[in-house]
Amino acid sequence: MEVMKVLHMNGGRGVTGMGDSSYANYSLVQQKVITMTKPITENAITQLYYSTLPKNLVIADLGCSSGPNTLFVVSELIKVVDQLRRKSGHDQSPEYQVFLNDLPGNDFNTIFKSLPSFQKKMRNQLGAGAGPCFFTGVPGSFYGRLFPSKTLHFVHSSYSLQWLSKVPEMVESNKGNIYMAQTSPPSVLRAYHAQFQADFSMFLECRAEELVLGGRMVLTFLGRRSEDPSSKECCYIWELLAIVLNEMVSKGLIEEEKMDFFNIPHYTPSPSEVKSEVQKE
Amino acid sequence: MEVMKVLHMNGGRGVTGMGDSSYANYSLVQQKVITMTKPITENAITQLYYSTLPKNLVIADLGCSSGPNTLFVVSELIKVVDQLRRKSGHDQSPEYQVFLNDLPGNDFNTIFKSLPSFQKKMRNQLGAGAGPCFFTGVPGSFYGRLFPSKTLHFVHSSYSLQWLSKVPEMVESNKGNIYMAQTSPPSVLRAYHAQFQADFSMFLECRAEELVLGGRMVLTFLGRRSEDPSSKECCYIWELLAIVLNEMVSKGLIEEEKMDFFNIPHYTPSPSEVKSEVQKE
Repeated sequence: MEVMKVLHMNGGRGVTGMGDSSYANYSLVQQKVITMTKPITENAITQLYYSTLPKNLVIADLGCSSGPNTLFVVSELIKVVDQLRRKSGHDQSPEYQVFLNDLPGNDFNTIFKSLPSFQKKMRNQLGAGAGPCFFTGVPGSFYGRLFPSKTLHFVHSSYSLQWLSKVPEMVESNKGNIYMAQTSPPSVLRAYHAQFQADFSMFLECRAEELVLGGRMVLTFLGRRSEDPSSKECCYIWELLAIVLNEMVSKGLIEEEKMDFFNIPHYTPSPSEVKSEVQKE
Repeated sequence: MEVMKVLHMNGGRGVTGMGDSSYANYSLVQQKVITMTKPITENAITQLYYSTLPKNLVIADLGCSSGPNTLFVVSELIKVVDQLRRKSGHDQSPEYQVFLNDLPGNDFNTIFKSLPSFQKKMRNQLGAGAGPCFFTGVPGSFYGRLFPSKTLHFVHSSYSLQWLSKVPEMVESNKGNIYMAQTSPPSVLRAYHAQFQADFSMFLECRAEELVLGGRMVLTFLGRRSEDPSSKECCYIWELLAIVLNEMVSKGLIEEEKMDFFNIPHYTPSPSEVKSEVQKE
């Protein structure tokens, strides 16, 4: 679990570990992803608004991190709802309650300190008539329950669900690799897939409890086109890293035993793998 | 407002500024206060539970700070409710949602990092059958709205409401003093009282919006017995501090002008002053 936390954090801060510039670049990638999925997100919140017309609209962002994107998506969602409200002539605005979730090691202090100026900006942008926005932080893993039953209207998660809850339990060593590779034993590939299934189904089960009837969810995460889990499209970056680590082992900079048992808790499912878990749930 | 934030924080960390040992002492004082008010708090949550039997019991602790007491009160409340549930033979436990509030500068990271082990301990103490407890952090001033309308069942605040939202606006200088004193001009005493009235009525107004019908509130804060706001019982500590600061001014260590405009945003109301604001609301 500890490894997951560290890597999950790294996920938000540049897995290539090149410091601040890498963090900024990685945030830009995330921002691009958010922009790409914007039409889907907007469509989902529009349908939610018209079908439920909630007095108190509760939004959760799962795996929010603590960077330039943390408050971006949620503020866009609120703007969309406010436009819909004006268009449809509802004088009474919903109140907005926003839950920002990440692991307990996330830097919530920095998010919270930026909130007063952010909320002021939001109020100015939305203008008079828009309901107040209440922000809260929720520390914990989204592979478990985070909210009481039937309390969320809208769940958003971007660029987080490709991280597993832990390194898969393996019956054979994944020697020389740190992730699924062409040279990994079949049991390692099966262990990765089983961990993805366990985690993703747990995620769906928890959210099903927490969402209100008619609630919506938009999940964005890395996946692969190929049905081969060790295909280059998802594993290349880890293979490069494995080459470097193996080199360090051969030079005695890392103990070989440590390398044998080091694996990345990451999984980029194929569309059919995702569909299968969703249908089960 | 900035001054308030600093002092509010100091309020949780020993206003006498004697470092770690003073923080521990101050926390002990707070703990003693919590123990003294325990029967009142327990009675209030008991009445709340029997009258509303909520599926999802929402508790807010306002001005939670980030010390040894932060999670103490709330965990005691949950234990009381769980005992009531067992006694009255309700198999179905409520779920618990806990909102921990303090100013955005509070150290929420430290609270959040301690949560996983705290929640594990709670689960062991409560045993099987008790509902899950969800913890969230709410950054912001309780002299404004923090939660959507009609969403809280129980509000608790201990040792925080004696801090005003800001230094009162004064028409005359409170020269030589840093708080209400026997030598303060009457206009200074009036300004302090007016600020208390504005803040406390705002607090009550906001909570009235946020509490569900039948919700309960237990507020503990410093007050005074005397009707004289500059009586020794509340002002002595500040008079001592003023003596030291005046000494520093006379030695040229602090500019006199700064001392003339420095005042503490603190007010310890009399019972009748509190009653009057509650009745207005």
